[in-house]
Amino acid sequence: MINQRISIVENILSANDRLASDNRQRLDSARLFSVNIMASPGAGKTSLIERTVKTLSNRLKIAVIDGDIATSLDADRAAAAGALAVQINTGGDCHLDAVMLQNALNTLELGELDLLIVENVGNLVCPAGFKLGTHSSVLVASVPEGDDKPYKYPGTYQGVDVLILNKIDLLPYVPFKMDYFKQGVQALNPGISTFPLSCLTGEGLSTWYEWVEIQVSRYRQATNST
Amino acid sequence: MINQRISIVENILSANDRLASDNRQRLDSARLFSVNIMASPGAGKTSLIERTVKTLSNRLKIAVIDGDIATSLDADRAAAAGALAVQINTGGDCHLDAVMLQNALNTLELGELDLLIVENVGNLVCPAGFKLGTHSSVLVASVPEGDDKPYKYPGTYQGVDVLILNKIDLLPYVPFKMDYFKQGVQALNPGISTFPLSCLTGEGLSTWYEWVEIQVSRYRQATNST
Repeated sequence: MINQRISIVENILSANDRLASDNRQRLDSARLFSVNIMASPGAGKTSLIERTVKTLSNRLKIAVIDGDIATSLDADRAAAAGALAVQINTGGDCHLDAVMLQNALNTLELGELDLLIVENVGNLVCPAGFKLGTHSSVLVASVPEGDDKPYKYPGTYQGVDVLILNKIDLLPYVPFKMDYFKQGVQALNPGISTFPLSCLTGEGLSTWYEWVEIQVSRYRQATNST
Repeated sequence: MINQRISIVENILSANDRLASDNRQRLDSARLFSVNIMASPGAGKTSLIERTVKTLSNRLKIAVIDGDIATSLDADRAAAAGALAVQINTGGDCHLDAVMLQNALNTLELGELDLLIVENVGNLVCPAGFKLGTHSSVLVASVPEGDDKPYKYPGTYQGVDVLILNKIDLLPYVPFKMDYFKQGVQALNPGISTFPLSCLTGEGLSTWYEWVEIQVSRYRQATNST
């Protein structure tokens, strides 16, 4: 029975990979830089997106695609912050997949946008296994989750391009050994770009905003010259 | 393709339900009360189990079955606290299922135990969909995750018997509207037993320990009289 389940999962994944690659082509044709934001529930994905949109929407035209198993709370917050917001209700599914993103892309004028932010379902296991076709994967960790998370969820920590450590304002109140956390991260993903910040106090956010703007501009230069 | 995937998932679930019911029969034959503890990563499942074992292991013989996608960090902590500890490495799977529990039960002398604690994989979506056969399902929520979690993960909040709200010591430092949280919980799971507590400071833990002891003793009385 185990083998059968594995082969089913492999078939789903390879179909997903093909669609993810179609999504990437579409994004590239539209010259639209895109990020896939993953995290466990409550790490602060929505707050980060909200603040990013509020700060950058005067310079970049941003769309947010929000994956949730129910409700449109996150998309409402992204829209209120000034983004074009598309809600995907996965109907209980624990991750976004490339088909869901494809359907959401159909509702947007991709060529008119500068930045696409995809907010995945809050889950530290499954989303990392399903490519969407986005250009960059960002993991939002948070201080109160604890310093052992890289060790316990290696697949997700390994599979991302950028790490945000949110809620650093709580460092004085919780047991969190920064060295132990960093050691775990470095073992899995050496040299990964890391942004310690607080979406509550704003500390560290400007470096993250700069990173986003630089990525968008570098991506455009690269797609210009090809 | 969507319909095909749904029917595969349904088959897996009904096979799982049959095995869960076998597990329950085995636990009942051994008169062993069992809880399945679920939470998102970092909500404090392991700390709660650690403290519960330390406090109750002079009165109850406790085993802990720890589900993790990698490492044995949690089982090590449960063993150090004084429990018999069994590690299940799911090899990337995002939840425990009834087969995994069955295999773990094979390694224990069930008749010699008073309490079995199962620590599920840190995930607020998938574990609630897979019955294990345990007697009670406990959800550990935590204050820094935010007050909107019942609204965003209704399946898990609906499918549990007991709710623990951990990290109440952080209430002064994070935006968390207790009324909004409680309202969401009550709409999904009216009257659910709720234990606000802090595994860091110890506040509220004694009420939880009492609940556990009462459940074990009531369960024994019920299985005695049948």
